[in-house]
Amino acid sequence: MKLIITLTTDFGLSDGFIGMMKGVILNINPDATIIDITHDIAPQNIEQGAFLFANAYRYFPANTIHVVIVDPGVGSARRPIAAQVGETFFVAPDNGVLSLAIPDPKSQTPNLNVRVVHLNKPEYWNPKISTTFHGRDIFAPVAAHLSLGVPLEALGEPITDWVRLPARGAARRADNAIVGRVMHVDRFGNVITNIDEAMLAAFAPRRARVAVTIRGTAITGIHATYAMVAPGELLALINSSGHLEIAAREANAAQLLGARAGDEIVVHALA
Amino acid sequence: MKLIITLTTDFGLSDGFIGMMKGVILNINPDATIIDITHDIAPQNIEQGAFLFANAYRYFPANTIHVVIVDPGVGSARRPIAAQVGETFFVAPDNGVLSLAIPDPKSQTPNLNVRVVHLNKPEYWNPKISTTFHGRDIFAPVAAHLSLGVPLEALGEPITDWVRLPARGAARRADNAIVGRVMHVDRFGNVITNIDEAMLAAFAPRRARVAVTIRGTAITGIHATYAMVAPGELLALINSSGHLEIAAREANAAQLLGARAGDEIVVHALA
Amino acid sequence: MKLIITLTTDFGLSDGFIGMMKGVILNINPDATIIDITHDIAPQNIEQGAFLFANAYRYFPANTIHVVIVDPGVGSARRPIAAQVGETFFVAPDNGVLSLAIPDPKSQTPNLNVRVVHLNKPEYWNPKISTTFHGRDIFAPVAAHLSLGVPLEALGEPITDWVRLPARGAARRADNAIVGRVMHVDRFGNVITNIDEAMLAAFAPRRARVAVTIRGTAITGIHATYAMVAPGELLALINSSGHLEIAAREANAAQLLGARAGDEIVVHALA
Repeated sequence: MKLIITLTTDFGLSDGFIGMMKGVILNINPDATIIDITHDIAPQNIEQGAFLFANAYRYFPANTIHVVIVDPGVGSARRPIAAQVGETFFVAPDNGVLSLAIPDPKSQTPNLNVRVVHLNKPEYWNPKISTTFHGRDIFAPVAAHLSLGVPLEALGEPITDWVRLPARGAARRADNAIVGRVMHVDRFGNVITNIDEAMLAAFAPRRARVAVTIRGTAITGIHATYAMVAPGELLALINSSGHLEIAAREANAAQLLGARAGDEIVVHALA
Repeated sequence: MKLIITLTTDFGLSDGFIGMMKGVILNINPDATIIDITHDIAPQNIEQGAFLFANAYRYFPANTIHVVIVDPGVGSARRPIAAQVGETFFVAPDNGVLSLAIPDPKSQTPNLNVRVVHLNKPEYWNPKISTTFHGRDIFAPVAAHLSLGVPLEALGEPITDWVRLPARGAARRADNAIVGRVMHVDRFGNVITNIDEAMLAAFAPRRARVAVTIRGTAITGIHATYAMVAPGELLALINSSGHLEIAAREANAAQLLGARAGDEIVVHALA
Repeated sequence: MKLIITLTTDFGLSDGFIGMMKGVILNINPDATIIDITHDIAPQNIEQGAFLFANAYRYFPANTIHVVIVDPGVGSARRPIAAQVGETFFVAPDNGVLSLAIPDPKSQTPNLNVRVVHLNKPEYWNPKISTTFHGRDIFAPVAAHLSLGVPLEALGEPITDWVRLPARGAARRADNAIVGRVMHVDRFGNVITNIDEAMLAAFAPRRARVAVTIRGTAITGIHATYAMVAPGELLALINSSGHLEIAAREANAAQLLGARAGDEIVVHALA
């Protein structure tokens, strides 16, 4: 069956790990279309993996199977899981890396079709299972079998207690500011935060009337596009994934600011 | 329809941008074959993008659709364009990044089938257009629609004034030398210039009788292959894309010379 | 024909080399499925290429065609070759990069179907052959023709004297120790050696009773998985490719040890 399987990992592209996973998938389903989202998640950084994956996977067609592996607990008792939300499938370790893609088990709305299984049927895995590379030995073959139409329930027992990352979203502060964090610095040096468009709109309907402070530098106003400032100048804007971003036109904002993932960012309303 | 879409960008592979573009393409045409040329163009370096793309795209079959995005002006008034030259298609921002692939609007020969359109039909774009990621929101969906057989003219208005980079080719100097520039340093440290085989042949029919000077170092003769010098030794040769290249056998010429993109290179005839 | 062609090279992904090779392949066989194993072999490091390729290629289906290019002798007299071992095909320069994938010409067992040819039929190559990029001009088109069903013997003359790397495997020492070498450091800083599971099992049936010494640090016992030690702690284990590996839980063992490819590693039995 010609379905899409995407791969998001912290495995890098240098060591052949991703090649092996693709070999395993094509052995089971030679017609699968395999697409890389990214393999450069910082090693073992589950939160960054969850964030970058959530920004990307929505652009894929219905019935896509997304494999997401950032797996510091490989070889321990952490469960491998697969999930279906509506017409989208996920395969991952049960460590919260899907926190932004599948709903909280305690808060799901009844009409959202969410099913999660603990992958515990070795007949859908590689014949030999290593203790250090479940991406190749469990997750890749499970995704390939899903792409052939094997139902989720055949792959493991249903569960309702999957792991979520602790909620660490941006928050309104008493003195009427928003406090958020830098989630990611991209290749261009754009500094991407966990403050989203809806939160900002509720806080400051007039975008010109805010000041954004990061690493001691205050930036005034939220601009619509890079081209609205002079080359080299810092600006704040809503980026293509709907998050508050600090950028510098044709320059590297993270270098200019000395900013990196984890940094605090504060948005104040101006008088 | 099973056509090839290639991607050449400065987006890198780390942030998920390319994965999103592929998702958008496959949503529109699940049968497209998507091939990466490179995503490591130096951020916003239009000239390098034009050079590396021109070296690569000729190896693809007829009817391939090439998406080329180095786009410092994203979100400004710069136009998105698509072009057809013979049986090859291009989708790019109108900033000169296609300068070496589509002819000068002022000099095109009448029998060359060249058509360029300003992409201004949002019905072929994503429903929501960001100000910072037209690769995902305009260029990817337009390429996918082209791959389904949508004619170029349906995608936008014909134009004849597309942007070209200023011609900065290598030149003959009064004292009978060629002066060129370093366009790119590759992974092996090979130093690739804008002096091409034809120019060199016209200047120096006997390749042994030239001296190539870069960063104060003179290299004598143009060799046929790396193996003609001792390991570690510098040499000049015509590389696989037909350009004068300074290399070092089993070593890194750029490091040995301290050379980088933009450096001047001079070829003298020897007495 | 819809066959898989894998690519393993030291060409990197930045310069467009791999894109060109894929264009050449798709020009000849538009239905080929092309999969990257890795393009980050250290430049011209044949031994590392042989090692990483051997770990990966076994995961691909029968009839896969593997192109392996680490080629410091490109343009010299070194031969291009293609090989078939059972139902697996290989295309590479004849410099030993296939040493761990095709058997020693002097020791092959008669019932193993091994055939190797010297690629010397230019009608299966690109029309124009550069002296520096046989990956694009010879190896890619040959692989594409193989994927269309061209028989091995049509591509060149049979040979029996293909090149092998000198055997530099791990060895038992007189004082009852194993001496091996670090072959590769992966993205996570895991230090991978040429001591394999079978050798270790013959030497030390009880894995807890060994000490592994590298860069002056001794590590006691072979553990089953990362999770058996505390975060940050060093451990030895058998990795997913069946080799002795020094790792550090959720940390970078190579950095902790100052270890790199080529380092000696010694395994002692404990009293």
